[in-house]
Amino acid sequence: MAERPKLVLAMQPEVLDLVLPAPLRDRLDTLADVHPHLLTDTGDPAAAEPLAQARVLLTGWGCPVLDTAVLDRAPNLAAVVHAAGSVKGHVRPEVFARGIAVSSAADANAAPVVEFTLATVWLAARRALGSAAAYVQGRQPTYADRIGADGATVGVIGASRIGRGVIARLLASPAGFRVLLADPYVDATEAEALGATLVDIDELCRSSDIVTVHAPDLPETHHLLDARRLALLRDGASLINTARGRLVDTAALAAECATGRIDAYLDVTDPEPLPLDHSLLALRNVLATPHIAGAQGTEVRRLGAYALDEVERWTKGEPLLGAVRADQLGRIA
Amino acid sequence: MAERPKLVLAMQPEVLDLVLPAPLRDRLDTLADVHPHLLTDTGDPAAAEPLAQARVLLTGWGCPVLDTAVLDRAPNLAAVVHAAGSVKGHVRPEVFARGIAVSSAADANAAPVVEFTLATVWLAARRALGSAAAYVQGRQPTYADRIGADGATVGVIGASRIGRGVIARLLASPAGFRVLLADPYVDATEAEALGATLVDIDELCRSSDIVTVHAPDLPETHHLLDARRLALLRDGASLINTARGRLVDTAALAAECATGRIDAYLDVTDPEPLPLDHSLLALRNVLATPHIAGAQGTEVRRLGAYALDEVERWTKGEPLLGAVRADQLGRIA
Repeated sequence: MAERPKLVLAMQPEVLDLVLPAPLRDRLDTLADVHPHLLTDTGDPAAAEPLAQARVLLTGWGCPVLDTAVLDRAPNLAAVVHAAGSVKGHVRPEVFARGIAVSSAADANAAPVVEFTLATVWLAARRALGSAAAYVQGRQPTYADRIGADGATVGVIGASRIGRGVIARLLASPAGFRVLLADPYVDATEAEALGATLVDIDELCRSSDIVTVHAPDLPETHHLLDARRLALLRDGASLINTARGRLVDTAALAAECATGRIDAYLDVTDPEPLPLDHSLLALRNVLATPHIAGAQGTEVRRLGAYALDEVERWTKGEPLLGAVRADQLGRIA
Repeated sequence: MAERPKLVLAMQPEVLDLVLPAPLRDRLDTLADVHPHLLTDTGDPAAAEPLAQARVLLTGWGCPVLDTAVLDRAPNLAAVVHAAGSVKGHVRPEVFARGIAVSSAADANAAPVVEFTLATVWLAARRALGSAAAYVQGRQPTYADRIGADGATVGVIGASRIGRGVIARLLASPAGFRVLLADPYVDATEAEALGATLVDIDELCRSSDIVTVHAPDLPETHHLLDARRLALLRDGASLINTARGRLVDTAALAAECATGRIDAYLDVTDPEPLPLDHSLLALRNVLATPHIAGAQGTEVRRLGAYALDEVERWTKGEPLLGAVRADQLGRIA
């Protein structure tokens, strides 16, 4: 019989029912002894007792940061199972240092982002935003202006989980996309196995009709697409960013988009949200959405279901499919 | 040995090289004796001789109308093979009355439209346009505002070739879309076989999160979505029209979109193009594109390749895959 551990839920109250609707909550009760206190504020005196007891923390959006001070009050904590994507907001290196297992539901979050990215790729492949912006100005495309998807070159920056998902879907399409990949952790052989051609980012920018960013937000990826690289993009190219805003120099992108040279699909920006008077928001060849590509609404239960599977695996002593290791903190999204 | 018929090309000069790039043109020369005159204007004296000789007309965008007067000058004409979608622009009932075979490449045109429609479905499933429009006005979505694709209801109006393609793709998605179908030529059993639930259009409008139109443009489908039916749409619903503009009452749609109640993805409109001062063009929750969903640019050669396959089948006496019959003129797109 598997251990039925003391488990504490730690996330914003607003998302709890999305992450764990009744059927999943019932299942969780069969897997663990769930503490009735919802942990949102570790400074709350009511947090002391659940922290002291917790073997497993099931975290979600808005969970408190797990730093040394909090961990000192949670001496029994053995696993942090996150029912969301990135653990970088709340998991500090001390968590790993104490031998606590960490799991993320990033796998389950990836599918909606891949779908959203593909949707924008299809629009970009016929320059939907640029032609919509021209329409508003009274310009209709000529036959020569009309671009089709067949044979378009898509540049994927970052062979992350999502980047790989995007590559696989592009290659499965009958359009015959040519896929370029830039990723410092991937060699040409691995890129070839993925079906992509490995190039450096400059070459990717120069040779792609569509560039889609799937790199992690790290000091070394800050403004990975800066003014110089954005200037390398082809006239009529589209940039898609569903990753993190800091990867792109927002001001430089706004300048390129303002001329109509480049269209952009931006689900993330820097800063985020953009100030209301930001020029990007006024451009009709830019679709700025408020960070909606990831699992949301009815999709959020996928994250909860994934997290429950992880809790079950942990209680049975099985390997965690979404395990996050200490050395990955520095290069994951 | 198959007949190598006299064949006349009839389309706008601008599209000829897109439809039949060199490799396809070379192949055509092996299939038929291609007349050097490109038929664009039947009033041109130079049209007389090719018309008199033509056994096959290979038509494309911008080809002349084939009415009685023209047909009287083409006594040898036995097949009209159209390297584009709809034949309604140039094939008159007299063509069928004379026993001339008619083929359309609508099958080859459908795939890009299906892809474009699916791309907009994915955006609509997370209310991308509505949230982008709210963003511009300084409103960020709450957790409760955030809508996911899982379990969304998509209403498909018209089980046309494209409508069926859209249904198949929706059902193949892991999102678990519920698909409603309205089509007067489909019964509940056939709808079930397609994976959709047959409903009347009013019910479809009331019960769908996303409505996508794939009906033909006929007198009886004019303003199929009129003010009354558009008012039935759910708050926050999205309307997608990649079919024909006349299917939707443009003024009524503009009024619904202006309140923010409905988002719209309009690749076609009535009139088309919209006048520059039309309110739809000013709305940020409307993406109006200039009829770009069908095969264009690099995709157009798919239509040429399909047409060549049809010419080959015709010369061999095989059935035409894209055959259009007289009785279909009244109910196809």
